[in-house]
Amino acid sequence: MLVNGRHYRTIWIDERNELCVIDQTVLPHEFRIVRLHTPAEVCRAISSMVVRGAGLIGATAGYGMWLAAAQAPEDRPFTLWMTECAASLIATRPTASNLAWAVERQRNLLASLGPELRKTDAVALLRAEADRIADEDAEFCRSIGQHGGELITAISRRKSGETVHVLTHCNAGWLAFVDYGSALSPVYAAFDAGVDVHVWVDETRPRNQGASLTAWELGRHGVRHDVIADNAGGHLMQHGMVDLVITGADRVTRCGDAANKIGTYLKALAAADNNVPFYVALPSSTFDFSLCDGVRDIPIEERDGEEVRRIRGVNRAGAAEHVLLCPEFSPARNWAFDVTPGRLITGLITERGICAASEEGVLGLYPEHAGRCSA
Amino acid sequence: MLVNGRHYRTIWIDERNELCVIDQTVLPHEFRIVRLHTPAEVCRAISSMVVRGAGLIGATAGYGMWLAAAQAPEDRPFTLWMTECAASLIATRPTASNLAWAVERQRNLLASLGPELRKTDAVALLRAEADRIADEDAEFCRSIGQHGGELITAISRRKSGETVHVLTHCNAGWLAFVDYGSALSPVYAAFDAGVDVHVWVDETRPRNQGASLTAWELGRHGVRHDVIADNAGGHLMQHGMVDLVITGADRVTRCGDAANKIGTYLKALAAADNNVPFYVALPSSTFDFSLCDGVRDIPIEERDGEEVRRIRGVNRAGAAEHVLLCPEFSPARNWAFDVTPGRLITGLITERGICAASEEGVLGLYPEHAGRCSA
Repeated sequence: MLVNGRHYRTIWIDERNELCVIDQTVLPHEFRIVRLHTPAEVCRAISSMVVRGAGLIGATAGYGMWLAAAQAPEDRPFTLWMTECAASLIATRPTASNLAWAVERQRNLLASLGPELRKTDAVALLRAEADRIADEDAEFCRSIGQHGGELITAISRRKSGETVHVLTHCNAGWLAFVDYGSALSPVYAAFDAGVDVHVWVDETRPRNQGASLTAWELGRHGVRHDVIADNAGGHLMQHGMVDLVITGADRVTRCGDAANKIGTYLKALAAADNNVPFYVALPSSTFDFSLCDGVRDIPIEERDGEEVRRIRGVNRAGAAEHVLLCPEFSPARNWAFDVTPGRLITGLITERGICAASEEGVLGLYPEHAGRCSA
Repeated sequence: MLVNGRHYRTIWIDERNELCVIDQTVLPHEFRIVRLHTPAEVCRAISSMVVRGAGLIGATAGYGMWLAAAQAPEDRPFTLWMTECAASLIATRPTASNLAWAVERQRNLLASLGPELRKTDAVALLRAEADRIADEDAEFCRSIGQHGGELITAISRRKSGETVHVLTHCNAGWLAFVDYGSALSPVYAAFDAGVDVHVWVDETRPRNQGASLTAWELGRHGVRHDVIADNAGGHLMQHGMVDLVITGADRVTRCGDAANKIGTYLKALAAADNNVPFYVALPSSTFDFSLCDGVRDIPIEERDGEEVRRIRGVNRAGAAEHVLLCPEFSPARNWAFDVTPGRLITGLITERGICAASEEGVLGLYPEHAGRCSA
């Protein structure tokens, strides 16, 4: 997507063959590009959320495996080193599917090369596979936009061209993927096709990915939006001010249960209570076909309570500040995701089309996973 | 309640006969007492939320009518002046019942005095009535604590003395009333009786009354608590980590629909979805016996979007700062309340006892209002 008139993806290799990402911890107040040189730097970038979002974490981990191979020490067995790097990458964030999926994809590639593997070949092949993971992510997100965009266009037609109000939670825009995004890709597709669309942007405490990232990328693209407190969506839905909810996901089970940013479940409940359609958009890399009951089985990351106690913004002088929001003596707890049961989800928007959030719906689109039994 | 070992109410007349309140916009980082000298200052204190909370707004408005009478200009008809001051007070916040209730109570007192009223008598009588409003508020809240405390004690007994986890939204503690509070009064009653109780404190964006006020007053009283993002409650309830939700209310209809801080409705939906009891605590002054359908008929205040875009905290140097959270170009919308339908409320905790959140339940406790028909 465009930033200041120039096309960017969220992750790329520059002319010096260095891995570049946009530092998402300093947006929207600063646009800063960061170079990641080692697998350890990649791990830190993921855990500290310099890069975040389902697809982008996957793509970054893919390149992390490339850097790991390129920097494998001569005095360590290569396979053991790669296994350790893979484990470190997977351990950075426990909930997102794409992370383990991308690392496993690179490990499977390595395994397929056999024991006579030359390290230089491995490095080149992992680099090419990382590029493919990134390109596929962008392409899948573009397809999600086509399928989901039709939902928005249909509502616009039903409303005789009046504004369609979409509510979204967290950031599942192009910043969360390699390009286009999942939840926002349908918005961009409809907007680019001339549909009058407006987005209610949940600020998405505690890290405010909505207020800082979604608002920023929508604004840069020219899409009308309003930031709202995470508490506001229920009231808006009670009063007919939301036509459609679309969120992204970090892991979706074969039965359609969706782990996404904490608070998504509350919006799904409000949508169900007010007959507002609630869609989850995801590329196939976000599915975990091995699980069914997401509330029971998806591991939920608990992060540092300081992310709740303090928040980052810019003061009136334009300087970045972390400010404390609660009494110094008050502790905080900070779960990063919750799970929305499939029963509350109107449909899943994937690169292959839209399906019901049920085992039948998911396996209808992904029949190649029908054989893999859930626990 | 105690602050640094000294007993405070949230509003009082000091030895110089001046009206004093605690400035709730600078808590928890600063404990500052503000004196209100004129009805205009009282209006500003309410609209800027120096004082806030159902009961405290009512008590403050009661004293506002006293100040209005005391400062009535000689060159204006007294009754007209008082009518104008009453209208200004009521216009400060449109959702809270207690505000109009307290102003009307003072106006009825004035009306009962008849036309031969001497201004000095009126001033003394309005002052005494304002004191009565404040004393009743404290007394009613104490009773709410007795009734609601039994709910917590019963859960503690059922759990064989294990910790009872209460979730609350916004601040409905003693800071929101004259003393004790509504939602927190049962917590204090149970805590003081030796029950092991822990509170999940919703930070309550955008103005963070939970993180700044509820956490502060619970901590000052020694009650264990954790601040959580407003998004977290659904996840906690899905995983059995909440035994009971208690919130306050700003207006409750005769049919049991409750307007409370924006986001309350989302928690009520999650409680219903997970069979967690959801109670609303309120003194009788918060009832609006003239309304039934709260979602349709309770006016919802929309406040300045800047309250969403910027937040106040203290920086690492200990200085108060307002920081911008979203892109400079992004607008925000800011509704202050939502309405939780009675069907989602397990019960209403009042000074007269606990009743169902239905017309039958409410009028069972308040039969004197049975005759007044709803729209």
